[in-house]
Amino acid sequence: MTAKLKILVVNGPNLNMLGKREPERYGTQSLNDILTALHATAQQHNVVLTDIQSNSEAELINAIHAAWQQIDAIIINPAAFTHTSVALRDALLSVAIPFFEVHLTNVHARESFRHHSYFSDVAQAVICGLGARGYEAALFGAIDLLQNKD
Amino acid sequence: MTAKLKILVVNGPNLNMLGKREPERYGTQSLNDILTALHATAQQHNVVLTDIQSNSEAELINAIHAAWQQIDAIIINPAAFTHTSVALRDALLSVAIPFFEVHLTNVHARESFRHHSYFSDVAQAVICGLGARGYEAALFGAIDLLQNKD
Amino acid sequence: MTAKLKILVVNGPNLNMLGKREPERYGTQSLNDILTALHATAQQHNVVLTDIQSNSEAELINAIHAAWQQIDAIIINPAAFTHTSVALRDALLSVAIPFFEVHLTNVHARESFRHHSYFSDVAQAVICGLGARGYEAALFGAIDLLQNKD
Amino acid sequence: MTAKLKILVVNGPNLNMLGKREPERYGTQSLNDILTALHATAQQHNVVLTDIQSNSEAELINAIHAAWQQIDAIIINPAAFTHTSVALRDALLSVAIPFFEVHLTNVHARESFRHHSYFSDVAQAVICGLGARGYEAALFGAIDLLQNKD
Amino acid sequence: MTAKLKILVVNGPNLNMLGKREPERYGTQSLNDILTALHATAQQHNVVLTDIQSNSEAELINAIHAAWQQIDAIIINPAAFTHTSVALRDALLSVAIPFFEVHLTNVHARESFRHHSYFSDVAQAVICGLGARGYEAALFGAIDLLQNKD
Amino acid sequence: MTAKLKILVVNGPNLNMLGKREPERYGTQSLNDILTALHATAQQHNVVLTDIQSNSEAELINAIHAAWQQIDAIIINPAAFTHTSVALRDALLSVAIPFFEVHLTNVHARESFRHHSYFSDVAQAVICGLGARGYEAALFGAIDLLQNKD
Amino acid sequence: MTAKLKILVVNGPNLNMLGKREPERYGTQSLNDILTALHATAQQHNVVLTDIQSNSEAELINAIHAAWQQIDAIIINPAAFTHTSVALRDALLSVAIPFFEVHLTNVHARESFRHHSYFSDVAQAVICGLGARGYEAALFGAIDLLQNKD
Amino acid sequence: MTAKLKILVVNGPNLNMLGKREPERYGTQSLNDILTALHATAQQHNVVLTDIQSNSEAELINAIHAAWQQIDAIIINPAAFTHTSVALRDALLSVAIPFFEVHLTNVHARESFRHHSYFSDVAQAVICGLGARGYEAALFGAIDLLQNKD
Amino acid sequence: MTAKLKILVVNGPNLNMLGKREPERYGTQSLNDILTALHATAQQHNVVLTDIQSNSEAELINAIHAAWQQIDAIIINPAAFTHTSVALRDALLSVAIPFFEVHLTNVHARESFRHHSYFSDVAQAVICGLGARGYEAALFGAIDLLQNKD
Amino acid sequence: MTAKLKILVVNGPNLNMLGKREPERYGTQSLNDILTALHATAQQHNVVLTDIQSNSEAELINAIHAAWQQIDAIIINPAAFTHTSVALRDALLSVAIPFFEVHLTNVHARESFRHHSYFSDVAQAVICGLGARGYEAALFGAIDLLQNKD
Amino acid sequence: MTAKLKILVVNGPNLNMLGKREPERYGTQSLNDILTALHATAQQHNVVLTDIQSNSEAELINAIHAAWQQIDAIIINPAAFTHTSVALRDALLSVAIPFFEVHLTNVHARESFRHHSYFSDVAQAVICGLGARGYEAALFGAIDLLQNKD
Amino acid sequence: MTAKLKILVVNGPNLNMLGKREPERYGTQSLNDILTALHATAQQHNVVLTDIQSNSEAELINAIHAAWQQIDAIIINPAAFTHTSVALRDALLSVAIPFFEVHLTNVHARESFRHHSYFSDVAQAVICGLGARGYEAALFGAIDLLQNKD
Repeated sequence: MTAKLKILVVNGPNLNMLGKREPERYGTQSLNDILTALHATAQQHNVVLTDIQSNSEAELINAIHAAWQQIDAIIINPAAFTHTSVALRDALLSVAIPFFEVHLTNVHARESFRHHSYFSDVAQAVICGLGARGYEAALFGAIDLLQNKD
Repeated sequence: MTAKLKILVVNGPNLNMLGKREPERYGTQSLNDILTALHATAQQHNVVLTDIQSNSEAELINAIHAAWQQIDAIIINPAAFTHTSVALRDALLSVAIPFFEVHLTNVHARESFRHHSYFSDVAQAVICGLGARGYEAALFGAIDLLQNKD
Repeated sequence: MTAKLKILVVNGPNLNMLGKREPERYGTQSLNDILTALHATAQQHNVVLTDIQSNSEAELINAIHAAWQQIDAIIINPAAFTHTSVALRDALLSVAIPFFEVHLTNVHARESFRHHSYFSDVAQAVICGLGARGYEAALFGAIDLLQNKD
Repeated sequence: MTAKLKILVVNGPNLNMLGKREPERYGTQSLNDILTALHATAQQHNVVLTDIQSNSEAELINAIHAAWQQIDAIIINPAAFTHTSVALRDALLSVAIPFFEVHLTNVHARESFRHHSYFSDVAQAVICGLGARGYEAALFGAIDLLQNKD
Repeated sequence: MTAKLKILVVNGPNLNMLGKREPERYGTQSLNDILTALHATAQQHNVVLTDIQSNSEAELINAIHAAWQQIDAIIINPAAFTHTSVALRDALLSVAIPFFEVHLTNVHARESFRHHSYFSDVAQAVICGLGARGYEAALFGAIDLLQNKD
Repeated sequence: MTAKLKILVVNGPNLNMLGKREPERYGTQSLNDILTALHATAQQHNVVLTDIQSNSEAELINAIHAAWQQIDAIIINPAAFTHTSVALRDALLSVAIPFFEVHLTNVHARESFRHHSYFSDVAQAVICGLGARGYEAALFGAIDLLQNKD
Repeated sequence: MTAKLKILVVNGPNLNMLGKREPERYGTQSLNDILTALHATAQQHNVVLTDIQSNSEAELINAIHAAWQQIDAIIINPAAFTHTSVALRDALLSVAIPFFEVHLTNVHARESFRHHSYFSDVAQAVICGLGARGYEAALFGAIDLLQNKD
Repeated sequence: MTAKLKILVVNGPNLNMLGKREPERYGTQSLNDILTALHATAQQHNVVLTDIQSNSEAELINAIHAAWQQIDAIIINPAAFTHTSVALRDALLSVAIPFFEVHLTNVHARESFRHHSYFSDVAQAVICGLGARGYEAALFGAIDLLQNKD
Repeated sequence: MTAKLKILVVNGPNLNMLGKREPERYGTQSLNDILTALHATAQQHNVVLTDIQSNSEAELINAIHAAWQQIDAIIINPAAFTHTSVALRDALLSVAIPFFEVHLTNVHARESFRHHSYFSDVAQAVICGLGARGYEAALFGAIDLLQNKD
Repeated sequence: MTAKLKILVVNGPNLNMLGKREPERYGTQSLNDILTALHATAQQHNVVLTDIQSNSEAELINAIHAAWQQIDAIIINPAAFTHTSVALRDALLSVAIPFFEVHLTNVHARESFRHHSYFSDVAQAVICGLGARGYEAALFGAIDLLQNKD
Repeated sequence: MTAKLKILVVNGPNLNMLGKREPERYGTQSLNDILTALHATAQQHNVVLTDIQSNSEAELINAIHAAWQQIDAIIINPAAFTHTSVALRDALLSVAIPFFEVHLTNVHARESFRHHSYFSDVAQAVICGLGARGYEAALFGAIDLLQNKD
Repeated sequence: MTAKLKILVVNGPNLNMLGKREPERYGTQSLNDILTALHATAQQHNVVLTDIQSNSEAELINAIHAAWQQIDAIIINPAAFTHTSVALRDALLSVAIPFFEVHLTNVHARESFRHHSYFSDVAQAVICGLGARGYEAALFGAIDLLQNKD
């Protein structure tokens, strides 16, 4: 396979506060720190990575629509939208791109309303509690999936 | 009655992907195709039709607010917001315009979280599974309602 | 297609009281009034329409059985049986005829036990709150379905 | 008030087995025994009493429809239909005749599925566990209600 | 049977406000009015009637304890304690006196928390919605029960 | 034991469509085929077998009432009434005849509303998924039970 | 088909106490008695029957694994594991052998936690309340299934 | 304490319709009227008040993020987002500013889906049903809290 | 308005322990401290304030009954009775005096059984988490309500 | 440790009927019998024991308040208040005295509403089904706890 | 009674880790320490005590089976099997030996899944939170029970 | 840090069938294949890896107990025990070793009883749907955790 894999990383609301927000829970690393490392890893594996963070559900939906027939896999950390956004779920289904759900913390150890996800049952995989490692694992999972597909 | 009826058609998130999204479920007709036909029918019945589609809940709310005292009835396909948006419900209640809820597919035959609607109990009528026919039936229902009112 | 479409309209219990029963909810039109208009529309569209109303679940089941291999589509207003009759559901499944579920009023705006239907998940479409228009919309929906099938 | 009150007594399924069925629970008195006494009491109070027992939901619905504008109050022991028949409930609502719900035994002391009634929330009164006395109490309740109405 | 039957009537909290409280629901008759009539009926049937009303759960429990081996049957309108007092239930069970549960209004037509009673499953009978007639019916039910017992 | 055992087979709604209805689920054997074989087996074991099929709950109730003191055991396939008919349950209890519940298919592998039966907790035995063999097994179970009783 | 059918009978915990345990519920027949009779029947029908009883979930899982590609059908009475063992369910699915679930008593007439089975929805058939006859019926059901397969 | 307290007032969707929307429920006072009075009170107590209203969840989140380390307390009327927005809750937690939840009407007296709030368990206080007074009470509560903190 | 407003403050069980009980939750202020300040504020606004604290549900009910036609508004902190006393709710309804529900702490942040109140749906307003300020806010709310009424 | 331990025994409603009430469940021993033995044991272990029984929730609350800073541990049999009294729970929490919950019978073997206790999650220990032995075990448990504390 | 009582103590999974496991919850005493003391007490009361600890459900079941007709009472701490093992429950029922359920800690103060026990409703008594004292109390309870039986 | 990290991999029931069991779900790779690769990766990162697979809950518990103070982190795929074994959860807690939960498939896309895990709320991280990659990600997560600890 000569064409490079194209993967989009979608980050949901409040992740721009990472490093500031509840540091005892989320650590002091910013989202930028995490993504910089992920871009490096992607490059080593010949993957073209693009990313977005937004607090607006509509912007995230539009970014996913734009990925239609342009992107091979999506890594998404829906953050709070995990538990409330059917629209984001439908956006992912509408473009029929396989996606990997990532959460920085172990959501199962938090409030009970965080135990339900509108994404998990249609995701390829779900990873939570591994911090930045979760994005990396999703990246490798996506590469595995796409290379097996060919 | 000399004044023309004024009806607004509101389309929720991901409906811009119609024709692309899950064609085995939603068919190959685009939203534009559906609305073009609906405008033609409206014109035949002397109705002034306007329409909006947005993936942004806020834009939809604003459009409904703008309809206050300008529009006689609303036809709404809230799409994914059907199951999650109390704000959209409240927008419709705030302008006190009668509205008709339409879904292209039969939501009762899908995931259980799609069985609950925040709109149905305050709608005039609910139509699902008739495809583009659903919009047409809502249009006739709205005309019936408004003409009886006069 | 030269053969005429054959459609059966099935009306459940208490609909014979229409026009008498709770007129503030159901209006003053009798079931006969509704069906007379529906027959006229059917004739215009080259459809052979037959209809039945019964307060007996067994009579309705027998009528559906008799439709087997004779009827192309069923329009059914199961009335109170909507919420209680698995036998009627099974009758419809046993003859494998596509059916359209119609309710005169918006059942979602009524008692919570009326929010569940034993028919909706296996219906082609569900229409409620459009009054007599609901039958008409179902008729057009059935014609669409059957003509696409050919 | 010169016109006699007209009251209909409706008895649901299996009550024809009274006196035979589970005598340790229902006693050895037959339905006929109960109604004979009730007719005597009615006559003493200048009430015209009619009654029906059927195992057929449709026959009971038809009897209630026939009561429309003919009967002033209904005493009903829906028996097993208490817990399952929305159609019978709707029949009572369709004729808009006040009704009194009677059960021979204390249903609250039995299986949990017998704790819910489709009739109680729209009944004038609910009496259970008084045996034949329950019918008598309902009769007096109906007389009270109707005489106050005039 | 030569000894007179002894029956205790127990009235729960707020019933002292009867005639004042929510007259559109409870009517203008006071508890005193109801009991005066009931005493008259009791006397006619050779029954020694005593009664108590209290807003104190403890006083009601003590009254029931005092009835032990002194009283043949209890008629109780637990009012609000119906839905909350296990202690009152236990008091009735502790004295092993058969009791009849009475409610002036049809509790099934009110708030859902009023649909559950801590008394009904161990009562002889349950009567609601018959107003003062309910006490009378319970009185006759108690006489029937006690006379059959002998 | 010289007297022959008398067993009644009761078949509920839509079973008359067997062989026609959903053949991929129910097979192509008709109810008549099944019963013919069952009669043969019964005869070999000296059992007098009678049977009924009806889509009418009332007819089934009446048949069960008629069995009172005439029939030694009942084999019943309540079909859709399994999940909805308290009246049929009560009919069986009213005649106090031991009964065996049979379902042709494995109802546990179907829609969740088919997982509850109003009959199982008062049946002698419950057999599902064995097809026509289920009737045969019930027949042998009934013979065992009745012969042990003597 | 010349090769003999091979069927494994799996018996869960406490069945070794049969005949001793709660004789009023389970009878005085031991598991050995039941299996001896079943072996005789199997032999008559040219079936090679093997059986195991264990109180250890792991031993039962291992026995099922060992059946992989060696056994044509399994008859299983999971006893208490019915309600708690996903591991045993998964063992049966892992070997992809059709199985028949048998219970000696009618579990539907017992504690509510015994109404749920982790096996029924993936079983061929479920038989309860027929005692030793249940094993026999399962044996015939398995023979039917396997012979139809060929 | 020489530095002035800085308090942000956040108003959710549809509050811009106040005075127009359902006046029988919300009164004829506009949001502007309420805030003008609140600014006056704030000034009297030496508080710097800023406010925002938006129908966009993203704009509200961004406004809260901007308050980080700039604002001492937040008064929030999340309106419809009360019941649906985990993202707004997380925004408030991410900036770690104490907040007071205000509702103009008594939400407990409305639809049951309005009884749950994603904010109340992490709020300092919750005030509903006091109209504009609720904002004022929250303001005083915030002043109390902040002055005690110093 | 020349007549002074008359307001009753009702305090439920254990509030006499305030200042002693769980000081880390409730602070060191006693109920007396809170009421002294409230009386001062009432006097400034020309309100006649009376108050009661009791650990006895019956005493609280009697105090509310005594308020009938004597008191214009009630401020109530039902404390633990919030979650259990239908009788106290009924007492408030029986006197038809508007009331304001106050809790010192934020009950939504405590055990889940404290999230339900038998008072909130019939209260004018509900205030929790403002400490003594909550009584003051209720006082102003009551004055607003009563002055608007005139 | 030179100072004697002081322990209060609190007995809830209907326990004064012990020995009379449902003797087949509670035995023929009176509460006095149990406490006499307990006092003897306490004396042997150098414990000052006081006790109260009341049918009044308020009296029990007051007794617990009076124990504040006077009593080292409480043994409580809340009887029916176990399942309904948040006020009693709060009273125990308000005095911050460790307490031991005792029930004479095994409440888990009784009605399901007796399976929930408002006390168990904040108790030191819970003992049920040991009869008078339960009080003794609680006494030893309290001594252990208090002696370890010193 | 001359024969010595024979009592078996059964300890479930992970209790071998006692003293090591979560010492802040379970203390530093090992299971051996507890049992040594219990054996001493048993000897003083002329009881023959045997004990077992196993992490294997099957071993525990086998030990209980072996106790059949050999042992007079069982003291069991099922540990984690409390919440999951129907098989162990059935083992206890199969041998028909009265048993006492003991937990070292107060399970009601822990995770909600620990609030349900498969043993409590069929146990003689349930003791939790008394540590090693709980075993002792169970021992005395067993002696009481067995001596009363004779 | 000079000492090598020691990590234990625990594999639950039926994983020995991997490669054979439901290959369309689990793929054709055996557990041995997965572990061989994992051992290689571990070696590269200077980790001493040991592993166990068992169908016996007791063996798994014993292996975890043996890890106490010997092992730095555990990677566990509890397979079917995920949903049923409190004992295994308790074993992990008893040794106080941080653990990572891995599932080969996306359990959220399977039967609803597989959505609950007794491990997730106390795990460091949860990974599902990544196949063998999930073990690798857990390994890296464990190394991260342990190196940060030092």
